[in-house]
Amino acid sequence: MISIEQAFQLLAQTITPLPVESTSLANLVGHVLAVDVIADVNSPPHDKSVMDGYAVRSADVATGLKRLEVVETIIAGDSPACVLGSGQSAKIMTGAQIPEGADAVVMVEQTESECAGGRQWVTLNIESLAAEKHVLRCGINFRKGQTVFTKGHVVRPTDIGLLAEVGAHVVDVANKPTVAVLPTGNELVDCASVPARGQIRNSNGPMLIAMARSLGLSVTDLGVGRDDLAALGEKISGGLDHDLLILSGGVSAGTMDLVPGILKELGVREVFHKVFVKPGKPIWFGVLGRGDRQTCVFGLPGNPVSSLVGFQLFVRAAIRRQMGGRLDDCQAVFGELSLPHETRGDRPTYWPASCVSDSTSVRKFKPLVWRGSSDLLALGDADGLIYFSADSSHHPAGELVKFLPFD
Amino acid sequence: MISIEQAFQLLAQTITPLPVESTSLANLVGHVLAVDVIADVNSPPHDKSVMDGYAVRSADVATGLKRLEVVETIIAGDSPACVLGSGQSAKIMTGAQIPEGADAVVMVEQTESECAGGRQWVTLNIESLAAEKHVLRCGINFRKGQTVFTKGHVVRPTDIGLLAEVGAHVVDVANKPTVAVLPTGNELVDCASVPARGQIRNSNGPMLIAMARSLGLSVTDLGVGRDDLAALGEKISGGLDHDLLILSGGVSAGTMDLVPGILKELGVREVFHKVFVKPGKPIWFGVLGRGDRQTCVFGLPGNPVSSLVGFQLFVRAAIRRQMGGRLDDCQAVFGELSLPHETRGDRPTYWPASCVSDSTSVRKFKPLVWRGSSDLLALGDADGLIYFSADSSHHPAGELVKFLPFD
Repeated sequence: MISIEQAFQLLAQTITPLPVESTSLANLVGHVLAVDVIADVNSPPHDKSVMDGYAVRSADVATGLKRLEVVETIIAGDSPACVLGSGQSAKIMTGAQIPEGADAVVMVEQTESECAGGRQWVTLNIESLAAEKHVLRCGINFRKGQTVFTKGHVVRPTDIGLLAEVGAHVVDVANKPTVAVLPTGNELVDCASVPARGQIRNSNGPMLIAMARSLGLSVTDLGVGRDDLAALGEKISGGLDHDLLILSGGVSAGTMDLVPGILKELGVREVFHKVFVKPGKPIWFGVLGRGDRQTCVFGLPGNPVSSLVGFQLFVRAAIRRQMGGRLDDCQAVFGELSLPHETRGDRPTYWPASCVSDSTSVRKFKPLVWRGSSDLLALGDADGLIYFSADSSHHPAGELVKFLPFD
Repeated sequence: MISIEQAFQLLAQTITPLPVESTSLANLVGHVLAVDVIADVNSPPHDKSVMDGYAVRSADVATGLKRLEVVETIIAGDSPACVLGSGQSAKIMTGAQIPEGADAVVMVEQTESECAGGRQWVTLNIESLAAEKHVLRCGINFRKGQTVFTKGHVVRPTDIGLLAEVGAHVVDVANKPTVAVLPTGNELVDCASVPARGQIRNSNGPMLIAMARSLGLSVTDLGVGRDDLAALGEKISGGLDHDLLILSGGVSAGTMDLVPGILKELGVREVFHKVFVKPGKPIWFGVLGRGDRQTCVFGLPGNPVSSLVGFQLFVRAAIRRQMGGRLDDCQAVFGELSLPHETRGDRPTYWPASCVSDSTSVRKFKPLVWRGSSDLLALGDADGLIYFSADSSHHPAGELVKFLPFD
């Protein structure tokens, strides 16, 4: 049986990123940049006023000249028409371009304006004026040609403003995978039904769909696969038209565990089956290549927490890789156990835990009461999973642990 | 001018949560529960096997009886037909219901089966067998009638499995607000255009839309509002048909700052204008009530970082309140400054910062090089905002600070 680390290595070696495509700004969130993004403008693009007021020559004020003719009004979006000479000023709005000749702005609150002799005048109620006052010079934030995002960056909503400012209205990114979800098992009924004796509700399907959708992916719900070779084979075959097929259930070694056999029959190459991890040991992963297209297939164990952990640990990483990102465990953070904890068994374990919030700088994670891979109750309070290696079973409060946050 | 705390109080006092509606499981993520969710089933719903093998009576094994008749095969989803008597067993699959009479399961790997005398037999290759071995008893995870989520819980993708298991296929939640976004300013051109002299690209529109969409909201892009009373009034009026209208620009005190006047004219009641915070001081907030409908309106300052901070700090909280959640500063976390930092000015400041990732349990935030409210470059590296009170300007490395993470 392979280790978690070996499973990650196999995912990295096997998964081919999806094709790169020019994608519009409105659809970039969640994508991994396939190229550096270079500014095509200076920021700001012109010398600009950061106040409403009057653009003036500071040298005029230095010589005691405080009553100036107003030769122009410049609002944001205007291109100034005049070059200010000595004794001249321009009324200017926040964000508007400073006219040539001016090198400072006096706030409107420090001025009085008048109309005299058919001309506009302003009197500056100030003692002195430093050059550059309230002026933001062209290119001070960044210069044309500067790299503002590097290849590999994952676009977040807060990045969209900067991308827009530099004109990145279309950007090359790897596609997001299309996903199909297929839980299997005769015992599964829809969550709107009342289960009969021996039945349980299909919880993995809606959960896996929700987790994949939360990554911004388009997900097809294939319903529930029954434990019947022909019918299940047909459903799985349809799922292989997607870039990623996520199955749950039917992957152990039992007589009713039909999934690995069907996948093999359909030409999907097994990359690994079973990982030395708890929960989720029977996880299955394989790929189907057809020309330059690759479908990744996960068979997650049917117990709901096993499916959840398999998704958070491996499927999420595989999706990131399909999107051209790195697969490494970048999401893990470290913190202290808030309570002592005992682990059982010989496998490394991911244990449901909540983040403890207090007013200190120390991350603390609270291991929750959890009865094993069928127990979803603990997950309602969980913010992620604490990793416990198999090296020791006793973990005192305050122990430094690794934590895998949910998205 | 009001403080940040006063602004939050006014938001809490003013904003009415949206109507509660039964919402299907597939659409619950991001919603705030308006009711407790009660389990309508036991988990598991029946005594079940956690292994493929044979359900047996442990008392038989205790008396040395290890060759048992196999009277039934039970797969997951079946309702067992037999009650096991002494000397009898049932072949059973993982997840299937344990038949009455049985109290333990022997793994298939520890058995040999045969057909003899027209009947099925199994021989158990074990020395002893504890009662309850490989049996998960009905209701051990949770019981019918138990509360599994409480009112106010914000539904996450990882919660969907538990909600499905307990039959919560429709749940009462407050609606999500419909949102309209309208940046204003004559200087704004589309991000696909090359700005002429005096112009800049519209970065706030796409950014505000992306941030609202990332909260799972339906967002209408109203384009760009020009600094013209009639045209801008018409656009704003259309925006008021939504539950939340987010404007940017035009909210200062300048002659071209038309937004507050137009909103007043359209019947929107000003709740506050200007908050003692940096960046984003000129922020405007008001509400329009029509019958039992309420539209919330934010006028964010036009500088892009001011808009971003205004959204992350106030708009996000208002949205949470509209959805029936609490408005309190629940998202803030504490950590240490990784670098010394100097603040300027007399206002409390939210400063762009990145999370430092290392293998310690201490959260560390790195204040980024940032030139002020027009500088989006720093935001490309930022994971959130460090809060600096106005009490001191010198902040040594290691100082405990509050951090507002981006979504």
